[in-house]
Formats: sequence, structure tokens, C-alpha cells
Amino acid sequence: MSVFTPAELDYLAGQQLARLGTIGPDGAPQVRPVGFFVNPDGTIDIIGHDNPASQKWRNVQRDARVALVIDDVVLTPWQPRALEVRGTAEALPDLRRTDAFPGAGPGVIRIRPHRVIAFGIEDDGPGTRTVPSTT
Amino acid sequence: MSVFTPAELDYLAGQQLARLGTIGPDGAPQVRPVGFFVNPDGTIDIIGHDNPASQKWRNVQRDARVALVIDDVVLTPWQPRALEVRGTAEALPDLRRTDAFPGAGPGVIRIRPHRVIAFGIEDDGPGTRTVPSTT
Repeated sequence: MSVFTPAELDYLAGQQLARLGTIGPDGAPQVRPVGFFVNPDGTIDIIGHDNPASQKWRNVQRDARVALVIDDVVLTPWQPRALEVRGTAEALPDLRRTDAFPGAGPGVIRIRPHRVIAFGIEDDGPGTRTVPSTT
Repeated sequence: MSVFTPAELDYLAGQQLARLGTIGPDGAPQVRPVGFFVNPDGTIDIIGHDNPASQKWRNVQRDARVALVIDDVVLTPWQPRALEVRGTAEALPDLRRTDAFPGAGPGVIRIRPHRVIAFGIEDDGPGTRTVPSTT
């Protein structure tokens, strides 16, 4: 079961990039643009050309807490839309998404959402909510 | 003196949104889309409708360390471009940018860059560099 509403899933499917916040070795934040997939169970996979060689990979191995934001602006009138997903990340070095872009290498960062903050995506959407913990 | 190259300044001037990473009260990262201006001295001002009421405002007052990423993708061929700026933030509650968007309220988060990571913006650009400390 996904934590996301049908309107949020439609929105996420239409976005190509997300921005991933992690904690660096000095405890300061780092943010990078990333490609992503939403899985049927509501987890999110971050893919890349060589994820295991990246700073973000080392960051999540040290501190699993991450934030991912997917957002854009609909013009005329100016209407920002955003989904921020806070959660914990797991580094899966052997997983390769066969549906990823050409050149995507093995190594997936899988995010399990703990809290979702939605803004501007649907008029009567759930907004901010905490995700019930699952087994 | 700005830490950014002329090509980077051109790139930044063409972008409407950045994503700001901060450290939340529990030490976990948070990321939000924000509007921004680059000042002649290389500092970056984050503006908003009501910055002082936001979680990111309280975050930077508690822990000044932030990361800001500005990025996009040029299609055909797929070419991602990004500038990540890591630095420290100062909350300026009384400052109002008169050149900001209509509805922008007082309260500016000013970022002083400590490290800049450039990717894909210019062929012979400086890439990653640490900013010399200034008085």
C-alpha cells in the first residue's frame, strides 16, 4: 500500500527529477538532484549512473535520515506544487532497475517515507501526515 | 567579489527556483523549494511570502549550516546542470527585498557560500572549490 494519493502518484509520475537531502560527514546538509521511481509499496528508489561511488551513498550509510523534495511551478497563475518526503534510506548495492534510464548502473538508494508534506497538488489532499510504521 | 564565474551567474539568473537543505530539530535533513537572489558579493538571499514563520527559518536559527542546489536538465541530448552551494545562513527578519516577487514579505535568509560544486554548466569551469574565508 502506498502512502501517496492517486493525485500525488500522477504528479510524481510526471516529474523527472527530485532533490535529495542527506547529512554529510561533518553533520551539515547536502542536496543533490536525482532520478527516482515510486514503488507500489510507497518506497522510492533513487537511481544514478554510479550511485555507490557517490557522496550521497556514503552519507546514507553513515546516517540513514534523508529528505526528498519533488516540486515544480505551474505558471499563469504562479502556483508552486511540492511533495517533501522525509524518511530513512537503505543502500542496495546489487540492485539494478531495468526500467531506469540508459546508462544507469547498479546501486539503488531506497527511501521508506516516515512523513509526507504535500503542497498545492490537490485542493482536498491530505497535506502533511505521518506514515504509520509497517513491518 | 562573487565566488561565481560569469557563466554561473548567467545560469543562476535564468533559474527561478532553488532547493534549500536545512537541519531539522531532530538533526534530520529537510529540503524545500525556495526563491532566491544572488548578491554582488556572492551571498544568496532566500525570499518567501512569510519566511520568519517557516520551519526553515527556525532551522537556520538553530543550526546555520545549509546546502542550496540549483539545477535543471537541457534536453536533446540529456545534459544535467547543477550548482550546489554549501555554507552558513543568517536570518535577517527586518530585511525586505524590494525586487522580489509581489507578495514577498520581510525576512530574508542570507547564505554565505563556503563550498561550491558545479556540474555541467561550463566546459572549462572551476568545478568544485572551497571559498576563501572573508572578513
